[in-house]
Amino acid sequence: MASPEIEQHLAPLRASVKEYGDLVRSLKESGAPKVDIDRAVVELKARKKRLEERELELAPKEAAFDRLKLEDLLKRRFFYDQSIASFRELDSAVSLTLRIEGVTGLYDFGPMGCAMKANMIDLWRKHFILEEGMLEVDCSVLTPEPVLKASGHVDRFADWMVKDVKTGECFRADHLIKNHAEKLIQDKKTSAADRDALVDVLAKLEGFDDKDMQAVIKKFHFKSPITGNELTDPIAFNLMFPTVIGPTGDFKAFLRPETAQGIFVNFKRLLEFNQGKLPFAAAQIGSGFRNEISPRQGLIRVREFTMCEIEHFVDPSDKDHPKFAKVRNYELSLFSACNQMDGRPAETCTIGDAVDKYNLERKQQLAGNGEMSKKRKKEVKKDMESQTCLAGNATSSQVWELGKGAVANETLGYYMVRVHQFLVKVGVDPRRLRFRQHLANEMAHYACDCWDAEILTSYGWIECVGNADRACFDLHQHYKATNVKLTAEKKLSEPKTVQVTEAVPNKALIGKAYKANAKQIMARLAELSAEDVGMLEGELRSTGKAVLTYEGGEAELKTDMLSVKRYEKKVHVEEITPSVIEPSFGIGRIMYAVLEHSFRQREGDEQRTFLTLPPQIAPIKCSVLPISSNLKLEPILEAVREQLAKHEISFKQDDSAGSIGRRYARTDEIGIPFGVTVDFESEKEPWTVTLRYALTMEQVRLQVSEVGRTVQDLAAGRMSWEDAQAKFPKFEQKADA
Amino acid sequence: MASPEIEQHLAPLRASVKEYGDLVRSLKESGAPKVDIDRAVVELKARKKRLEERELELAPKEAAFDRLKLEDLLKRRFFYDQSIASFRELDSAVSLTLRIEGVTGLYDFGPMGCAMKANMIDLWRKHFILEEGMLEVDCSVLTPEPVLKASGHVDRFADWMVKDVKTGECFRADHLIKNHAEKLIQDKKTSAADRDALVDVLAKLEGFDDKDMQAVIKKFHFKSPITGNELTDPIAFNLMFPTVIGPTGDFKAFLRPETAQGIFVNFKRLLEFNQGKLPFAAAQIGSGFRNEISPRQGLIRVREFTMCEIEHFVDPSDKDHPKFAKVRNYELSLFSACNQMDGRPAETCTIGDAVDKYNLERKQQLAGNGEMSKKRKKEVKKDMESQTCLAGNATSSQVWELGKGAVANETLGYYMVRVHQFLVKVGVDPRRLRFRQHLANEMAHYACDCWDAEILTSYGWIECVGNADRACFDLHQHYKATNVKLTAEKKLSEPKTVQVTEAVPNKALIGKAYKANAKQIMARLAELSAEDVGMLEGELRSTGKAVLTYEGGEAELKTDMLSVKRYEKKVHVEEITPSVIEPSFGIGRIMYAVLEHSFRQREGDEQRTFLTLPPQIAPIKCSVLPISSNLKLEPILEAVREQLAKHEISFKQDDSAGSIGRRYARTDEIGIPFGVTVDFESEKEPWTVTLRYALTMEQVRLQVSEVGRTVQDLAAGRMSWEDAQAKFPKFEQKADA
Repeated sequence: MASPEIEQHLAPLRASVKEYGDLVRSLKESGAPKVDIDRAVVELKARKKRLEERELELAPKEAAFDRLKLEDLLKRRFFYDQSIASFRELDSAVSLTLRIEGVTGLYDFGPMGCAMKANMIDLWRKHFILEEGMLEVDCSVLTPEPVLKASGHVDRFADWMVKDVKTGECFRADHLIKNHAEKLIQDKKTSAADRDALVDVLAKLEGFDDKDMQAVIKKFHFKSPITGNELTDPIAFNLMFPTVIGPTGDFKAFLRPETAQGIFVNFKRLLEFNQGKLPFAAAQIGSGFRNEISPRQGLIRVREFTMCEIEHFVDPSDKDHPKFAKVRNYELSLFSACNQMDGRPAETCTIGDAVDKYNLERKQQLAGNGEMSKKRKKEVKKDMESQTCLAGNATSSQVWELGKGAVANETLGYYMVRVHQFLVKVGVDPRRLRFRQHLANEMAHYACDCWDAEILTSYGWIECVGNADRACFDLHQHYKATNVKLTAEKKLSEPKTVQVTEAVPNKALIGKAYKANAKQIMARLAELSAEDVGMLEGELRSTGKAVLTYEGGEAELKTDMLSVKRYEKKVHVEEITPSVIEPSFGIGRIMYAVLEHSFRQREGDEQRTFLTLPPQIAPIKCSVLPISSNLKLEPILEAVREQLAKHEISFKQDDSAGSIGRRYARTDEIGIPFGVTVDFESEKEPWTVTLRYALTMEQVRLQVSEVGRTVQDLAAGRMSWEDAQAKFPKFEQKADA
Repeated sequence: MASPEIEQHLAPLRASVKEYGDLVRSLKESGAPKVDIDRAVVELKARKKRLEERELELAPKEAAFDRLKLEDLLKRRFFYDQSIASFRELDSAVSLTLRIEGVTGLYDFGPMGCAMKANMIDLWRKHFILEEGMLEVDCSVLTPEPVLKASGHVDRFADWMVKDVKTGECFRADHLIKNHAEKLIQDKKTSAADRDALVDVLAKLEGFDDKDMQAVIKKFHFKSPITGNELTDPIAFNLMFPTVIGPTGDFKAFLRPETAQGIFVNFKRLLEFNQGKLPFAAAQIGSGFRNEISPRQGLIRVREFTMCEIEHFVDPSDKDHPKFAKVRNYELSLFSACNQMDGRPAETCTIGDAVDKYNLERKQQLAGNGEMSKKRKKEVKKDMESQTCLAGNATSSQVWELGKGAVANETLGYYMVRVHQFLVKVGVDPRRLRFRQHLANEMAHYACDCWDAEILTSYGWIECVGNADRACFDLHQHYKATNVKLTAEKKLSEPKTVQVTEAVPNKALIGKAYKANAKQIMARLAELSAEDVGMLEGELRSTGKAVLTYEGGEAELKTDMLSVKRYEKKVHVEEITPSVIEPSFGIGRIMYAVLEHSFRQREGDEQRTFLTLPPQIAPIKCSVLPISSNLKLEPILEAVREQLAKHEISFKQDDSAGSIGRRYARTDEIGIPFGVTVDFESEKEPWTVTLRYALTMEQVRLQVSEVGRTVQDLAAGRMSWEDAQAKFPKFEQKADA
């Protein structure tokens, strides 16, 4: 909650959201037509958006942040830049430039960005794969079409675009509408009615489908912004990069749009690797590719990106997590679906409470409000244990009601905590971090519950980690495509009795009638379901014959060719299709957010900017600065470099001309947390140097022989700067002048 | 050199190679036509190949190696397997299987392979990037066409293939010829003459061009092995995977065939990052893609692979390396071009000798055999300092002569040592590792010198790391494409006087005559070279007018419109295009070689195989084995797991049923070097466990509280197993029974 003054400003906006939240609920409750609900949801989202924009406007600003300054720094010191930037900046190769200026959304990481990214990934690997004992895989980027057909990407992974009917130039439909509408709203010639309509369009645009967008384009006569030509109707553009494998062109393939599919297709092997036991988690770190129609916002929306994905496979009837007790009291900022519909802000709550609340509400709802009858209790228990996913089987209104700050299960909750811990460790400001629950109509149709870790940046709240309970959707899709069951065996607590209905063939008669095909026919009979056997039996009884389709053709069976046997069997295991809980990280987005959150200006000297990256993430841990280029310092410098190399500390020596203060500023700018300076005092035996902490600009003096271990401990977080100050004498000279 | 008995067998083959080596030399010396030399080289290579095959046949075998057993292990324990293997093994989805069975050459790494690969890359990063202070970059995989046009890949990165004229099915031409020829040679109906001709074809195939191959296909009437249809002439197939960026289809791009180009296009920025100074090295780790016509041999020839590439930029006139003195006495097995031509085997020699020899021979050769005259000495010096690359400018015969076990410069030699150190560290058997120098006609036309690190596997000698001095080729290619000079400034030891010739325009007259275009004309005049100015001047003098082409068109200049000014200028720097020395690693190939070299069978029990991977590379460092599933062991197990996790040691608990001996065998099989067993003795306070070393199967007993640090030190190589045995009591029980 913001301050009372601000809340006063926001109150009407909150009420306006709630009005539509309530309307949506009541429409769902009363079973209103889908079109009415959808319309109300669009309006609800528009109101939510207005509220959020106002909230951000009114929020007390973080210490002045200047994006242009940060971007300049990132480019100048080569954290990252657009790919083949050198080809772009040419006057002398105009034709070439034209040929590649459309190629946006690709970035090259320079030494600083590359090291920072590698450090983040290293930390991720330790935090998740090592600490949680996950199975890491590394699958190919090139993915044959059938895999992505099975996953649904070939059919559904698309954005709407419109084309210039004459030049063929493409525009993302929603972006085009937004740009045109904003221009028209500013235009004095636009009528008041049109202006209102356009404001309305902008607010609702996110929820528009192709027909909505086409209607707007037609109504306002939107044309190509480049040529003024007419535009086509919106057409779906698949966002995967296509290619072909092999020389014939017959094997279509795509660059993977996510790493997750590589895990799903290897599920059986991974299960086997885990000795057949659930739960287990697999993880993958690697590149993903999306052919965005119009990439923008730097690292936020790009065409090639690094993902870290976890697929945690779990028994759908038991999503408890063994380590949940350890994190139960960990607090998160949760922006539940319910709060979003009520116009209320995110709330801080322990993950234990959030999961308990869900279970409680779920029970109450399933039981009705009164005392539960014994029968009802049993039903509730069964329902909760069943493999059915809430979103899949419960009515929509149930889903809407269940969102009250509640997280669907312990495993999902456990991961949300671990994600939060990771993000804070790499340098995300926890005050600018929240988990936003998807509303029912945002959620992929197969997901049970989904909470995005969103980070507040100068671009607004950015989704950086998706945390979804995807139920059994993915494994089921691949099963449908391959007919290979992707299931695990679950040991039953007590053996279960099942009814078996079997068609027993009269081998002699079938053999005589069908000769070479008899074997196939009997194989087919053996695999019939109880239901199929029943139908066959019925047909035989009523007509004396029945047709059986098998791989080799069709066979007409007579009554004497088979008998039906029914009996009970005790089974000790059952086959289950695991649920998948998926945390999915966009490393580039997190990296950008960390850079924004760690960007500072020195008080009193705004030109002097620096990065307060956590030492574990900092691209370079230590700078080495000779106070002069006098050659007598060289043996001491060599000793310092040896110390650092021996302790595997990345360092950079800056012996450029310029005052030591200016060189400190250069190292601060790229977030080097520690700096060793060799000065003329260093020469006295035993050699000593100063060690400086960039954040506070304080210095201590220590022996060269102590440098390696000290910086190593500081950089790994085993020693704090206060510890160092207690251990070594303070060095007073004001070198930052 | 092999044993005298073996050498006796090889002698005639060696002589037969030398005969052609000498012939090639003399042909080159006498300036024979290229076609004659090429023919002799093909025969030379065929003879080399026969010699090598015989050498391998006669060499004493490594302890019996069974490739099928290793492959079974790698698949079963999920080191790696073909991508989407689950889609491949289906009977029930035949149509789908057919659609993807042609999609070969793609591999998924499971938990074991993935961890092993990550460990290798981690070690690579420390060994090269950290220890040598390299600038790491991470560039996009998607590469716009202009970049690969500039690098030459669009035009030249291709293999020959032939197509079935009716079905369009494709075959790599050399593979098709090989398979047909081998079959015909076996066929009793083949005439002796044809058999001889085909043996000859097989030996020379590697050097064949499209015309040679077409001649063979026509002569022997080779058809499609699938349909028996006629085949097309060999056509070039570009090995890059094509795609398009953005929705219009206008921006062609490829998946990068190597990571190196990302470094070259960022050269300017990297130089700037290095404060403008040479030498410096940049490195990149990432995926490369080659659309092989027919991938095979497991990880050896694949379509998607991990590369680690270094581009070391250096002043072409000074390729000494500051750390060369440290490695001067390091011995390598060098298989020089000269030895290859003489039919002699690889020789062991220090890198210092190899580089010295080169310089000596180079001097002698340039000076002639007699005493050098002063003038000649000066010429030699100039030549050696010049930027010209030997292979580019020297005659071919010089290149052939210079190969006598000699490495072209200190920087190349230094990297060869570092590469050798790395390969041995990750587990390559140094006895099966050699550096083979490229023969002149194998070398890319721009390279000065190239030594491949080759590793002997069951597939023969495999190129795993290329080490090339590429001179200024790459930077020059990108300069030609963009017209942006990719040069560095070199401070001259003393200022140099240069002649300047400048065209000075008469602004008033040109302005009057050309109005709006005058500015462009004057800009053009300012950028004319001295030579152009001279020509313009000459033309004006002789005809009174001259035509100048500028961006806006053509201008006719008159004598009074410009004067020519000539003067001397002192310059303190000169522009140089750096040479590039490139070590390029194929991680998958190295990984496969390490797996082969570390694969063992227990003496007396051949079914029991194990991997002796270096602990730093082992996917899992430690196993945890409870001797029974008795719950009272659980707290001790938990304490062991905590110890290991705290020390960041990857571990795997195996509590499957089965004797402890069988479980040890399971962990040995995947190369887990250390194993902790919790038994019933463990319960006595303070808790103790046994620690087992897989290689020797010996065990010691230590306290649980000592486990983490001990295994950490052992795994990092800070403690040897002997140290551990000295420190802790031996545990005698024979658990491996």
